[in-house]
Amino acid sequence: MSRAYERLCRRFREIATLEAAAGILQWDQAVWMPAGGVELRGQELALLARLGHEWLADPEVGAWLELASGEVGDDPWARANLREMERQHRRARAVDPALVVRLRETTTRAELVWREAREASDFARFAPHLAEVVALVREQAEQLGRGLGLAPYDALLDGYQPDLRDDDLTRLFAPLARHLPDLVEQALARQRPAVRPGRTFPIEAQRQLARRLVAALGFDFHHGRLDESTHPFCGGSPDDVRMTARYDARDPLSGLMAVIHETGHALYSQGLPPHWRGLPVGEDRGIAVHESQSLLLEMKLGRSRPFLHWLAGLLREHLGADPAFEPDNLVALAQRVERGFIRVDADELTYPLHVILRWRLERALIRGELAVDELPAAWNEGMRELLGVVPPDDRRGVLQDIHWALGAFGYFPCYTVGALLAAQLLAACERELGPLDDDLARGDLSRILAWLRAHIHGLGCRYGFHELICKATGAPLGVAAFLDQAHRRYGVRRIEPAEQVR
Amino acid sequence: MSRAYERLCRRFREIATLEAAAGILQWDQAVWMPAGGVELRGQELALLARLGHEWLADPEVGAWLELASGEVGDDPWARANLREMERQHRRARAVDPALVVRLRETTTRAELVWREAREASDFARFAPHLAEVVALVREQAEQLGRGLGLAPYDALLDGYQPDLRDDDLTRLFAPLARHLPDLVEQALARQRPAVRPGRTFPIEAQRQLARRLVAALGFDFHHGRLDESTHPFCGGSPDDVRMTARYDARDPLSGLMAVIHETGHALYSQGLPPHWRGLPVGEDRGIAVHESQSLLLEMKLGRSRPFLHWLAGLLREHLGADPAFEPDNLVALAQRVERGFIRVDADELTYPLHVILRWRLERALIRGELAVDELPAAWNEGMRELLGVVPPDDRRGVLQDIHWALGAFGYFPCYTVGALLAAQLLAACERELGPLDDDLARGDLSRILAWLRAHIHGLGCRYGFHELICKATGAPLGVAAFLDQAHRRYGVRRIEPAEQVR
Repeated sequence: MSRAYERLCRRFREIATLEAAAGILQWDQAVWMPAGGVELRGQELALLARLGHEWLADPEVGAWLELASGEVGDDPWARANLREMERQHRRARAVDPALVVRLRETTTRAELVWREAREASDFARFAPHLAEVVALVREQAEQLGRGLGLAPYDALLDGYQPDLRDDDLTRLFAPLARHLPDLVEQALARQRPAVRPGRTFPIEAQRQLARRLVAALGFDFHHGRLDESTHPFCGGSPDDVRMTARYDARDPLSGLMAVIHETGHALYSQGLPPHWRGLPVGEDRGIAVHESQSLLLEMKLGRSRPFLHWLAGLLREHLGADPAFEPDNLVALAQRVERGFIRVDADELTYPLHVILRWRLERALIRGELAVDELPAAWNEGMRELLGVVPPDDRRGVLQDIHWALGAFGYFPCYTVGALLAAQLLAACERELGPLDDDLARGDLSRILAWLRAHIHGLGCRYGFHELICKATGAPLGVAAFLDQAHRRYGVRRIEPAEQVR
Repeated sequence: MSRAYERLCRRFREIATLEAAAGILQWDQAVWMPAGGVELRGQELALLARLGHEWLADPEVGAWLELASGEVGDDPWARANLREMERQHRRARAVDPALVVRLRETTTRAELVWREAREASDFARFAPHLAEVVALVREQAEQLGRGLGLAPYDALLDGYQPDLRDDDLTRLFAPLARHLPDLVEQALARQRPAVRPGRTFPIEAQRQLARRLVAALGFDFHHGRLDESTHPFCGGSPDDVRMTARYDARDPLSGLMAVIHETGHALYSQGLPPHWRGLPVGEDRGIAVHESQSLLLEMKLGRSRPFLHWLAGLLREHLGADPAFEPDNLVALAQRVERGFIRVDADELTYPLHVILRWRLERALIRGELAVDELPAAWNEGMRELLGVVPPDDRRGVLQDIHWALGAFGYFPCYTVGALLAAQLLAACERELGPLDDDLARGDLSRILAWLRAHIHGLGCRYGFHELICKATGAPLGVAAFLDQAHRRYGVRRIEPAEQVR
């Protein structure tokens, strides 16, 4: 390797080192930081983010990129590394730094107001702030789009899941919006009542159970931790993954499911190619792929009948017997479908409908086809259409999510793209390995994890998003596996391929 | 304030922000980090340290300093701020950056070898690494001395305690070396046996007790935390202080005394002038002053008879009755004097002798008057002379401390200078407030803390080291208060001032 490429690698490793440091500081903020440290922490994170952005947008990086492409030869990993460096550099240069600063200031304020407005269920209080955020994000999307040769909303999407386009979403979400309401209806009609746990369970016992579960799933505690925070998340960096959980004394199952979800993220992170640590090609392939890993573990494997039967034994062992932990009851609880108002509480079948609603609305906001003031009515109308329920107030409606307050437009679709990918990966894995029920019934994910390591985790950004999916599953991303698995799990009417693509 | 000064303030605030981030990362490394994160963490800390050094040594800072001195007028705080900026900048520029890198690499290796060598009590294994460190530190001391107009060892001392010179140490340590061995002899002859706790005490109960104690001493949990690590320390930054403790099931008193010690550091940090956060004049006045605060709390107040009587009640309440917790027995335990081999286990009377030994040896190493190979013999000879005991092996002798492996020469004296200052501050505080026994008997440090806030904490670097001491205590630093308090506590023969200065 000659000089420009080496300089690029050094530069990107330094940026990754800054980001790893920021990851720990964010984790600390969520898990341990005393309240009085918040202002200083904000300054620390802003400084590290500013430095990282400066180093990435540096014109020297552009000059090195031009020289380096003649240096790396045919090595496909190095070429992919350069491609991802270039992608990140172009993105960083596309937006006016002054706009970045204004966005950060505006979203910091908007987030605070959003918290109050949600608490008070008062959209009018939040509206002017959201309008300001939308105006700035539209400007950001314009600038990004010009720099990257993309439509504005595509440019936003691309920031979360590179190569994911609004056309993909239109193609994927149409059959979901068409079929899911009916499937939900059928699942609701079929499902049997389930008993909820009737007592409380010591948090310390839940903690022990969670640690045992996470280790059984393959999490490497030598390179990570499991702690607690208000909202579970998976942070840190591949060599030092920081997962958090939240335990509810009355509801151990929800805490465990969140832990399994975060473990999916953590396993992806720990499985990224070790030889490319700190370099773009060694990073995860995007938010939707990340979400596919967490949903594969939580929704596909974690809520499967054989796994739940195994988990029932673990629950009894750590928390004592309870009617709710009877294996079949546990399945009924974990596979329960409900037309709720709240996305984060949604089940596998209704979740995509919550996402499709947000996708339609945020796309319209970015295109200037919907005004912020019209949002609550459009929200409620969309809920009626897609889910058949209307939230009684904006707290349980348009004010429920933090994403837009933070300026994160284009993020929501990744959840459902991830769910579709999880289903398609599981189908491919089953084709290759044969039935997985025996593995799941023993709580043994080693074969599945090895498959994921080979086809997703260990590939980092070696391939583009669509190429990765085709290589791993033999086909472009579609809805067939998702709908097929819904049919099998919820016993709903099978949807024929011809219907899906209509 | 006009432009150069503003730029300086912005620059130093950014450096302080980096240092605050590094403080949390170091704390995390000691408290939570999984073992597999150590390499990445080293990279993070090295990167932040390198950036901070570059920003400080930047020639632009020198140019701004020249312009700024005409801008700040007579405001004494701003002038002191500039003075401290200049001091830090000159120090950062005095050493060849290549030497800094070599020192870091060499000490990182030396520390690893030191750990093995100490374990194996094998000085020969450590010697070549220490020799390398000494050679580099001598070079560093030469460069610093040239840049700052100081003798080499003074230049090292100045890095830990600005304005502290070897002449001060010679003047202060001579009477200690003369009188302490005799005082130790007398104290040993007088002291009564004490009962040690005979059972174990749950760690969780000790934790609760420590939190209550720390809060009673004035620690602000809104701006700090108390956690656990192998070696207790106080880190973080003034708005987010991270203290750690270590609890021993068999020996709750030692854990509590360490907690009181760290609380002294923490209160200093939390009491620094809030209007000057992130700026040099708002920082602590140096290691010796910091140590004076921890030793004032631990040795002077924490081990006083009235405070220990109050603490006895707290121990009984949280840990249950035990013969060891009888008030007078607790006093006998906490004021026990012993001729030990290990500095960190030493009591108030023998500790300075351990320090004087190290000061003599490190000074001789830096001056080139002692070779590394001669160290073990010189160590044992010094122990015989000062403490009357000879360690049975190098593990309990010359290999016991990490400081030299890390290249920290000039640090040890700060412990004892801090002890002397603690005594002198207590005497001044008593002169102004009257007897403090009633406060201590109620565990109420509020009057004492207010005095320290006014005379030390809240002054940051407003004054130089010697000026601060004179203003707070009415006299230059001496040994009289320390020896006088030793007389009162240990009932040893009073030493006349004429003897001390001889």
